[in-house]
Amino acid sequence: MSTRFRRLALIGIGLIGSSIALAARRQGLVESIAISTRRPETLEEARELGLGDVYTTDPAEAVRGADLVILCTPVGAYEAVMEAIAPALEPGAILSDVGSVKRHVVRTVTPHVPEGVHFVPGHPLAGTEHSGPSAGFPELFVKRWCVLTPEPEVDRKAVQRLVAFWSAMGSQVETMDADHHDMVLAITSHVPHLIAYNIVGTVADLEEDTQSEVIKFSASGFRDFTRIAASDPVMWRDVFLTNRDAVLEMLGRCLEDLSVLQRAVRVGDGPGLEALFTRTRAVRRSIIDAGQDSAAPDFGRPHE
Amino acid sequence: MSTRFRRLALIGIGLIGSSIALAARRQGLVESIAISTRRPETLEEARELGLGDVYTTDPAEAVRGADLVILCTPVGAYEAVMEAIAPALEPGAILSDVGSVKRHVVRTVTPHVPEGVHFVPGHPLAGTEHSGPSAGFPELFVKRWCVLTPEPEVDRKAVQRLVAFWSAMGSQVETMDADHHDMVLAITSHVPHLIAYNIVGTVADLEEDTQSEVIKFSASGFRDFTRIAASDPVMWRDVFLTNRDAVLEMLGRCLEDLSVLQRAVRVGDGPGLEALFTRTRAVRRSIIDAGQDSAAPDFGRPHE
Ligand SMILES: NC(=O)c1ccc[n+]([C@@H]2O[C@H](COP(=O)([O-])OP(=O)(O)OC[C@H]3O[C@@H](n4cnc5c(N)ncnc54)[C@H](OP(=O)(O)O)[C@@H]3O)[C@@H](O)[C@H]2O)c1
Ligand SMILES: NC(=O)c1ccc[n+]([C@@H]2O[C@H](COP(=O)([O-])OP(=O)(O)OC[C@H]3O[C@@H](n4cnc5c(N)ncnc54)[C@H](OP(=O)(O)O)[C@@H]3O)[C@@H](O)[C@H]2O)c1
Repeated sequence: MSTRFRRLALIGIGLIGSSIALAARRQGLVESIAISTRRPETLEEARELGLGDVYTTDPAEAVRGADLVILCTPVGAYEAVMEAIAPALEPGAILSDVGSVKRHVVRTVTPHVPEGVHFVPGHPLAGTEHSGPSAGFPELFVKRWCVLTPEPEVDRKAVQRLVAFWSAMGSQVETMDADHHDMVLAITSHVPHLIAYNIVGTVADLEEDTQSEVIKFSASGFRDFTRIAASDPVMWRDVFLTNRDAVLEMLGRCLEDLSVLQRAVRVGDGPGLEALFTRTRAVRRSIIDAGQDSAAPDFGRPHE
Repeated sequence: MSTRFRRLALIGIGLIGSSIALAARRQGLVESIAISTRRPETLEEARELGLGDVYTTDPAEAVRGADLVILCTPVGAYEAVMEAIAPALEPGAILSDVGSVKRHVVRTVTPHVPEGVHFVPGHPLAGTEHSGPSAGFPELFVKRWCVLTPEPEVDRKAVQRLVAFWSAMGSQVETMDADHHDMVLAITSHVPHLIAYNIVGTVADLEEDTQSEVIKFSASGFRDFTRIAASDPVMWRDVFLTNRDAVLEMLGRCLEDLSVLQRAVRVGDGPGLEALFTRTRAVRRSIIDAGQDSAAPDFGRPHE
């Protein structure tokens, strides 16, 4: 089984697409890279950064001759992208993506996949709050999980080649069902982002005087939420439009718990509050033990 | 006006107390330091770390002869501490604290303050999620705010000496009314902690299988909340017991906004979601511009 691809086509070249380009090149996983994106300015930026070999605003042109195609746009753009590229996909090619939701992607993309093309949806659990081609870096996927969610009937060899591709970029790869992915990600990613966006939104609605004081004193806790609430608006809009049920289910649980906590504060239930605050410490410990965050105080932020 | 104190007494020697000891010593702000804490083990730890000159489990002994006394225990312990130390406080001494709530502290402490002692409540907006004497470091207060909330009738010279003390440890000092402090901190600190504790609690209640997957994939957002939800349970219990009204007011606003957001997800209101997610980005930018957080992606966490 060859891990090397002849031509990689990246449709969308933001944070994730550019990081794949840089990592695949550095690891020698591809002979050439074709890059397509919607806006000429973004394409120009990618060209200046030297991310690929072929640059085009026509996604069909980019996928022609590619044996690996990865969709790296917000998921809301997939339908239109598939309509454009389907006729140009080569038989035997692997088609994948990096979208943060998976059931919706399977539902949207599958009907467009030509006979003989292997569709293996993927999601690298790696990112930062920055966007665009210049935000990418080749280490982004190192020691991070990448989840693949192929349907049961998909060619095993194609799945294995994609596993090898992500592993070579430094990821730990896990395969699971698309629905399961969406449930787990609703908890670990989507609802935390929604809650962070919400509290930052509440602050953005305060009178100007109060708001500037909140910003001034934000190091006392609030600033931690603002990082993820600075993530790309379009990408996150699409996440919530396409993983609604799992998000609402998990959000419902959080809201229930928050009502209980609100009451504990209102009635002054000291032992109840202390018990909750003690239980939550263990979760942090598990995350550090699992190598999923730094044990350094304050995320290792500098204290001069 | 002398910025140097003859003797500093620290009642409580955890993260904040030990950081004051180290910073005051390094900057030459005190001739000697007396340390008192409740448990002999903690006192022993402080002694081994060489944090002070005099060590005692009797707070009254520690404050005798001190011209600056700072309470560094959870605020729930203040009443008992004041009963113990009031008779031993020297006339002319400055009495201060570092508690995260201020109106309650003013109400609790003031009746115990002897004639001639200057009570100037304080709150350094600096901390990490770690606790105990060994968590302290002398740079903790550098470039961080310290808020003082003296009542109007308090001696101006005493306030100025305390401002000089915190400034010399690297803080930017601001004076404000205790109620105003509690409102601003409810927003920037208390409610964010409550919400973080809540979502981490929701995860801690999931079935074990799901929970271990959430931990495994936590880098996709959730882990950001677990840091502040690992803060000291007793300290935070006391915060919520003593700043109830401001916390409930702000929490109420967040819950209202969360209901609106929940509906936007349910009905699939794309433009509404995108508009909110765009507004929140500006808040992050303001915080970075104000020097209150790092602009590095992912809080500057290492990506190898
Ligand atoms: N950011 C993360 O943390 C993260 C993590 C894991 C997975 N993901 C997933 O990765 C994908 C890309 O995210 P990203 O962070 O790389 O985004 P990004 O930096 O904002 O880049 C998005 C790219 O998609 C293009 N694009 C946007 N809308 C389009 C449309 N309607 N039609 C065609 N192209 C369009 C953009 O091109 P133009 O500039 O030319 O418009 C740009 O090249 C998303 O599906 C997201 O769910 C993101
Ligand atoms: N942590 C932060 O981020 C932060 C930031 C700003 C302000 N503050 C405020 O600073 C104060 C101390 O916080 P910290 O983080 O330094 O806490 P910490 O590391 O947990 O230390 C607390 C200290 O208080 C003592 N103590 C606890 N309960 C006591 C009681 N009932 N009676 C007498 N002494 C008691 C402990 O002594 P033993 O070990 O001997 O029991 C220990 O020396 C709190 O009022 C908090 O609101 C904290």
